[in-house]
Amino acid sequence: MTKPPASGLSLGIDIGASKTHGILLDADGSRLAETVRPTLTGPEGVVNTAVAVVIECLGQATAPDAAVSIGIGIPGQVDPATGLVRTAVNLGISELDLGQRLTAALGVPVTIDNDVKAAALGAANHLGVADGDLAYLNFGTGVAAAAVVHGRLVRGHGNLAGEIGHIPVDPQGERCQCGQRGCLEVLAGGGRIAARLAALGTGLTLGTLVQAAAAGEPGAEAEADRLCTGIALAVQLVVLTQGSELVVLGGGVIHTAPGLVPRVQEVLIARAEESEFLASLRLAERITVIPADYPVAAIGAALVGLRRTRAKQLAPIG
Amino acid sequence: MTKPPASGLSLGIDIGASKTHGILLDADGSRLAETVRPTLTGPEGVVNTAVAVVIECLGQATAPDAAVSIGIGIPGQVDPATGLVRTAVNLGISELDLGQRLTAALGVPVTIDNDVKAAALGAANHLGVADGDLAYLNFGTGVAAAAVVHGRLVRGHGNLAGEIGHIPVDPQGERCQCGQRGCLEVLAGGGRIAARLAALGTGLTLGTLVQAAAAGEPGAEAEADRLCTGIALAVQLVVLTQGSELVVLGGGVIHTAPGLVPRVQEVLIARAEESEFLASLRLAERITVIPADYPVAAIGAALVGLRRTRAKQLAPIG
Repeated sequence: MTKPPASGLSLGIDIGASKTHGILLDADGSRLAETVRPTLTGPEGVVNTAVAVVIECLGQATAPDAAVSIGIGIPGQVDPATGLVRTAVNLGISELDLGQRLTAALGVPVTIDNDVKAAALGAANHLGVADGDLAYLNFGTGVAAAAVVHGRLVRGHGNLAGEIGHIPVDPQGERCQCGQRGCLEVLAGGGRIAARLAALGTGLTLGTLVQAAAAGEPGAEAEADRLCTGIALAVQLVVLTQGSELVVLGGGVIHTAPGLVPRVQEVLIARAEESEFLASLRLAERITVIPADYPVAAIGAALVGLRRTRAKQLAPIG
Repeated sequence: MTKPPASGLSLGIDIGASKTHGILLDADGSRLAETVRPTLTGPEGVVNTAVAVVIECLGQATAPDAAVSIGIGIPGQVDPATGLVRTAVNLGISELDLGQRLTAALGVPVTIDNDVKAAALGAANHLGVADGDLAYLNFGTGVAAAAVVHGRLVRGHGNLAGEIGHIPVDPQGERCQCGQRGCLEVLAGGGRIAARLAALGTGLTLGTLVQAAAAGEPGAEAEADRLCTGIALAVQLVVLTQGSELVVLGGGVIHTAPGLVPRVQEVLIARAEESEFLASLRLAERITVIPADYPVAAIGAALVGLRRTRAKQLAPIG
């Protein structure tokens, strides 16, 4: 299990488009409480949901008087320094000072971060490589990544690092909602896949896609190939750019489609047969899947809060 | 000019496929000596060339008795910890323990690193962002990158980080020598461009390409578009993956083709017109070109040597 080497409790909240997941950890990283609520959207909805989850989690705990650090993971462009969230489209947020709103509402400092960046910290913690290098790839409605290098999150200017979903990999590809063609998100984003499957009108879903492709069902094979190629290219991209030894896959697309990751590994191996260089990278072997029942983003959010609280404790006063 | 904040002299050597460039800097980063020799290839040739350049540079200096740190930048997979160079194809090297060979030949510790990684340090130093974040993109015979994040080079597992030349961006593209199709290097690597220009048989060269394209010369426009698209995609790729605020361009392709970088910026602006998301990134504005007469890799190599020497001085003895 998780082991944040801390004193006090840490509470992490993962605000997703449909549900919000809260988890309370003790100093050893054991789960003291856990709660899930549907996410109310819009700025007020998100604030109210987060507050309710905090209260519910703390209400379940047996040591409610202990010091608690609170961290939040949320989609969009997030600035942990100011607590500002921008363009969390699926949550109906164009701009929200979530950190300040929650700090005011709860009376304790609340640290926020992008949900995929938080998940990368959670993944590093889960895999016991908190001081090392890894890439976390999230295939949800969209596609995004986060990297831990030398034990630190790569944030980039304006916290932009990791927006790999909008790297184009096919000039003849379908138009992405971002306006470009052939983005990784067009190939491997859950939103686009669901729309294409619905358009087939055969009742095919992500849950049956890989099996249907193996059985040769019309439409399924092309869709499965497109998805697996997108994931394979994303893996290759982060390895060649950042040299990640470990590539951790997570997100709804990964967990909803049984057989998907082995098929991605087959694609990587087939691609390596055409290229000695690719073969030397052993990309298929670098892949690890975060367990579907491991709340990686909520635990990462708890770590975000914990790190920030400790950094502030160490900072000079005034 | 360069300012390595050090005592003593630093000597940096950039071993290229055709020539080897040496530069001797004093503690303030002023150039005390500089020399260029043709590179002899093969393991013995490379060692002998480097030794000759060291002797020539030190022979030019007025303070030959000062302590000198020596750093070398060389293409290929380079492990600074062991001094081993692998697969420097254009130098005729499959494996060479260059660090140990030079340390033995010269009687002082010699630190080696990949030439593009060394150049990224040189670029960060030149631009006065040695403690910040940047991406350095090198368009030479091949295409490679290196990133400085939080003031440190991103090396990756096995020093692999930065091999972006072999990220495929077009499934219908030409076959790359690595075996894949449509790699960035196929679009924007000097080797492939030279081969395609020669095949045109019109006397078109990289030096006249952009002007000929503007004049509508047959073949020139397609080639210039392909090249500029490749560079534009490489810029977008490092910005979205690592969030680099500054993207520094260097290498023979950049310096040999007048008008190339403004045309790349036009391509980036035209692509942004199709995508509000791309427009928000202001990619064209992130580009800086390293001056053609600034020996970025040799100066970076000097910094590599200096950093390593200082790290060793600080390390506990025994």
